[in-house]
Formats: sequence, structure tokens, C-alpha cells
Amino acid sequence: MNITADIELRDREEDYININPLQTAGRTTVEARKAILSYIDGYSVCDWCKGALCEMDKLPVKKFLDEVSAFLGMDASILTDGAREAKYAVLHAITSPGDSVVIDANKHYTTYVACERAGVKIYEVAGSSHPEYGINPDDYAKVFEQVKAETGALPKLAILTHVDGSYGNVVDAKAVGRICRDYKVPFLLNCAYSSGRMPINGRELYADFISSSGHKSWAAGGGNVGLLSISEGWKGKVFKVSGKYKVKPLEILGCSSRGSSTLALMASFPHVKERVKNWDKEVENARYVASELEKIGLVNLGVKPRQHDVNFFESEILYRISQTHKDKNFFLYKELKDRGIIGIKAGLTKNFKLSTYGKTQEQVKHLVWAFQDIVGKFGK
Amino acid sequence: MNITADIELRDREEDYININPLQTAGRTTVEARKAILSYIDGYSVCDWCKGALCEMDKLPVKKFLDEVSAFLGMDASILTDGAREAKYAVLHAITSPGDSVVIDANKHYTTYVACERAGVKIYEVAGSSHPEYGINPDDYAKVFEQVKAETGALPKLAILTHVDGSYGNVVDAKAVGRICRDYKVPFLLNCAYSSGRMPINGRELYADFISSSGHKSWAAGGGNVGLLSISEGWKGKVFKVSGKYKVKPLEILGCSSRGSSTLALMASFPHVKERVKNWDKEVENARYVASELEKIGLVNLGVKPRQHDVNFFESEILYRISQTHKDKNFFLYKELKDRGIIGIKAGLTKNFKLSTYGKTQEQVKHLVWAFQDIVGKFGK
Repeated sequence: MNITADIELRDREEDYININPLQTAGRTTVEARKAILSYIDGYSVCDWCKGALCEMDKLPVKKFLDEVSAFLGMDASILTDGAREAKYAVLHAITSPGDSVVIDANKHYTTYVACERAGVKIYEVAGSSHPEYGINPDDYAKVFEQVKAETGALPKLAILTHVDGSYGNVVDAKAVGRICRDYKVPFLLNCAYSSGRMPINGRELYADFISSSGHKSWAAGGGNVGLLSISEGWKGKVFKVSGKYKVKPLEILGCSSRGSSTLALMASFPHVKERVKNWDKEVENARYVASELEKIGLVNLGVKPRQHDVNFFESEILYRISQTHKDKNFFLYKELKDRGIIGIKAGLTKNFKLSTYGKTQEQVKHLVWAFQDIVGKFGK
Repeated sequence: MNITADIELRDREEDYININPLQTAGRTTVEARKAILSYIDGYSVCDWCKGALCEMDKLPVKKFLDEVSAFLGMDASILTDGAREAKYAVLHAITSPGDSVVIDANKHYTTYVACERAGVKIYEVAGSSHPEYGINPDDYAKVFEQVKAETGALPKLAILTHVDGSYGNVVDAKAVGRICRDYKVPFLLNCAYSSGRMPINGRELYADFISSSGHKSWAAGGGNVGLLSISEGWKGKVFKVSGKYKVKPLEILGCSSRGSSTLALMASFPHVKERVKNWDKEVENARYVASELEKIGLVNLGVKPRQHDVNFFESEILYRISQTHKDKNFFLYKELKDRGIIGIKAGLTKNFKLSTYGKTQEQVKHLVWAFQDIVGKFGK
């Protein structure tokens, strides 16, 4: 078997408008591409290492991390291999197997899996039902009380998905943070779909920990990289270093994302700092798409008014078309592709999500037109 | 501060003969570069995901991993973020805090840090003294007995650094494996400096687990990626999946290296499979450099005859030169750079390591000439 021959060259960013929520805010900048190309060879970030990735100064990793902390309103940051590894790092550092941890119903699966790996008992804050699937901050207090009643102790950690990747609901993190502060439960805010896209200030949200995804929301591209930012008091526990190798933080096994992804994250950072200022415009685009697609019969789920670039739709009309279209349930994928749009999972017609992050007004209008055209052509 | 402006474009592979042991066998192939470029945008490896990175078939990740297992003489493999993450995955999956684990004196620091993170008690097999720094396999049995005497139980895991990155000593892994088998102690062979460079058959070495480094030794380039390969009996424990998300292995938090590094690893694999067949030639080059540099007064450390591309040297003569050269201890770095060679840590003269992996005979001869020329010019 020739594996190389089986790797399809990928052209979706160059040839299409990509609306995959996983990818819109991870698209590389010119600067990131330059950095990746330049550092493409083996372990190249280590050229000037003096012992620890996050302390490097010749490549300005330390400076970058200090700026990230300021940017996120936190006190200290380290590089991780991604948001999931940041969450697990916190879990592993401050909980023990058997402890209780509270998460939310809209969590990314990795929050759950990280908890399982840490061996903790998982309590879940339920979401509201269809069509909103919202998280009510006050429910955190209720679940804290439940944990206390059932186990005799408050949970060791509360995790909130700031914005989930399905409905794009922005939860009132400050309200959850205040409850955590009141109960003295450490608060981890998973910002995989928020930091890097929209302005975040962890201090104002009472966050003890923030996990961020470089490849998902910081324009760092296709190598996985993330960030773990913490408030001052947690340094000793969460950034604890090896007893023998005094510069090596245990929870990232010394150095985490020791490659070009880190350079890409750094190279895109000036752009990221600027782009979060345009958040209003991103929300406006998302609302425009939601309202236009509702006009042609799609139903936009999630909490209204929309506050995020990720939109979830239910669509009876597209499902109905799929019943008679020659391409069956793959018709939407194909018809959109024919119109230069990609990123909705192939095979979906009844339920799907999309993101307009970083798209121009012209692209957003084209997207709306594409749906109108498809429904107009096949939906009689 | 403009972080982007502070990222120096890197040219050491293009403009120099790079002899940094960390980097020689990680240098990208043309195919890897093509894959990285093509998959450079956010989370691009997930385009065709059906739920789990290691099971992907449209991008032939699963096929690739099956071939890797065959290539390494193991039964199953998954992708990790690197060799250190593979070692921690095994430690976390099969030990509990307080358990005993045996490692070797020539371990990479991450072996120690992974043990610390897992909370295990570390016992170390001592190495022989200067100039060999060898690991005697029989000492594993002695330390097992010591652990048993002190704790009442055998260790839960033994880790051996197959080849260390300082002296390039190739340990008789089969002998260690046989001892582990006799004592029924699970055996993790860290192949960060061996698999991908030289032929490995885990089954013949009695290895239960093999950790590999994609960016270090599999020509996968600058994004970190690794491999964890296991023997059949360990699937349930080490590749255990989430109770809720049935395709997501806990120890890699569902999906590990979810980016272009994985594509690069796959794209370079046909080349890697071929290049290990030239191992004799690599060893020959290393021996040639060692013997030629000894002729001009350097001392080659490690077990003789050399069996690996990494060579460690002690040099009184170069140290003596540094005492009077205008560039002081940076002279060797600068003089080599002037002769088109890079990769020995700036500032070192008395002790340093280098690797000739993948170099042509012409490059190896040039390297020897450069040292001869420097010693000839300044060493009077």
C-alpha cells in the first residue's frame, strides 16, 4: 500500500468558502504560514532552547505567553497540545480520583473524556430543552448543592463550556464564575470556541483557569496547540515543576507543543489581537445568516438573539428534498460544493451547523444566496 | 511588542549541514512538506472524521497505524503527541500513584517527569561510569529484586531507553526484555532515538510497549507527533475507550495529534521504511567520524564499537582553544558555522554531541575536515 498516494491534497480553503465551525477561526494567517514553513523541520523550535519551551527568549515564547495572559485577563499562561490537554492538566493537578467535578450539558466530549481519564465523578448541569439548549448559570449552584448533599463535600472543580461548538450558545460565564467564587469551587472556563475569536477577560469572569485552542480559534492552523492560562494562586499546583528538572512543568511533561504550531500561534497573535475587536461584526453576520435562512424555512436553534458565529439549523425542507434528490442525503453537501461552499458534514440535511467566522460580507451573502438557490430549485 | 517581527526565519536545514541529534532524523521529506502545506489550515485532518483520529479511513490513518504495528513488530498502535505523551499514557493506564517503576540512568528527562506526573516511586538502573555510560541489562534484575525487597512487590513497569540521546548507546533491549518477561514486569521500550532510524522488532525484544517520536526520528518535521505501539494483551487497559464516547481512547483524550503533523508522519512513512535498511551505512559514518576526530585529540565517549549515529565527544583541545580565541566558548559554534555546519549547542567546546544521521558521505567528510581545519588552525 502506498500511503502517500492515498493522502488527498487538500484545497478547501483555497477553492471554497469553508463554513466548518471547527476550521473557520483556525485558518492560518500569512505570518503563520511563513513561520510553519520556516520551522517545518524536526524539533526546530528547540534550536535555542535553554531548558524549557515556555521560558524561551531567543524565540520570544515567554514574551508571547506574558502577552497572552494580559490579553485574556489572566496571570500566567503555558503552552499545551490543545484545549483538551489544558483541561486534563488542571483536572490532574487539582483533583484526585473519586473527587467530584461539575460540567455542563453542552460540553465538548473532551471535557467528559478528560474527567474520565482523571478518574473523577462527573456531575452535569443540564441544558434547557429544544430549541434553545441554553445553560442557566444558577443551575451550577443547584448542582453544587446536590454534590454536597450526595458526597458530603463540594466539587473540586467546575468546568463551563464558554461557547459550545454545536449551538454556539455564549453562556453568562461571569454569573457561573460568581457562583463558583461564592462556593469557593475552582472554576475552569473552556474557551475553545471563544478566546481568539471574541474578547475575553478571565479576571472579570472570575475564572481560575482558561483553556484555549490554538488550532481552532487562534489562527494557528493545522498543528495542534493550545494554551492554559491561570490566576496567580494556582501556579504552585498547576504549573508545578519537576523535583529533579526544576524548569520542567509536570502537567505538560516539560514542554508541550514543541514545534512549528507554537510558532504559528505566536505569528498569528498580532492578527488575533486585532480581529477580536471586530466581534460585533461577526455576530452581525451570524444573525443575518440565521434570519435569512429562517425566511426560507430553516429553523435556527440556540439562545436568541445569536451571540456567536456558530449557527445550528434544523431543516425539514432540506430533508424533504433529500428524499427525492438523486444524491439522496448527500445532495446538500454536493449542491453547496457546486456553489463554492464546503464545511457542512457530508450526508447531513436535517440538522447541521455552520460558522461564518472571518467571512467577508460578500461571502456571507453568497452563502445565503446558495441556500436560497438550492431551496428554490429543489424545494417545490 | 511585535512578536512576529521577533520570529527569526530559520534556514539551518537549507543553508547548513545540521548535526543536531534532535533534528537530523526529523528532517521532513518532500512528501511530508507537501502534506503539511496542504493541511496547513485549522484542524484540517478532521475533514473526514467519523469519530476517531486513529480509526480514520478516508485519510488512511488506520491503515497507516496497522502498517506501523507491522513495521515495529507490535500488535496495535495509536498516535500520540510525542514519545513523552506515549510514555505517560502507559504509566497512567497501568500504574497507580505510589507504585514502583524502574527506569535507566540514561533516560530522557521526560521519562522521569512522566513518572513524577504519574506519582510513582522511581528506581533507577545505574549506568557504568566514564567513558562508556553503558546500561547492563542484568542490572534490571538486580533492581527488580531491590524493589521487591524494599516494597514487598515487583515494579509495575520497567522502562528502558533503547538508545539515549547523549551517548547514542544502543542497549541490549532483548536482554532487558527477557528479564522483564521472566519477572512478569511489563516492559516499555522508549524508541525515540531508534524506531524510524534503525530496524526495530518489538516482539523479538519482548517489548509490551514501544514509544516513538515522529518529529525526532520519523522525518515528520516540526509539529510534534508520536506513536504508542503495544502488544495485544494490553489493548483493554492502555487503549481503553470512554464509557460514554465508545471510540475515544482515554489516554489520548479521544484524538491526539489532530493536525498536519499526523499527515507528515504518514507521508514520510514510505521513506522511513526504506531508510532503516541503510542503518549499517549510518553506523559506518558515525564510526568514521568518531575515529577521525579521535585522531585529532577528541575523545569519543559511549560503548564501543559505536552502534548509532549519535556521538558524544570530550575535547580538551577545543576547550583549550576557547581560552584564547576572541569568541571564547562560542568559537566552536562560530567556526563550524563559518564552515557550513550547525547543530552543536552554541557555547560548548569541552563536551558536545552530534549526529550524522542521513548525511551523505561527502557531508560526513566535510564535517571531519571542518574539525581538522579548526584544530589545525587554532590548536597550536
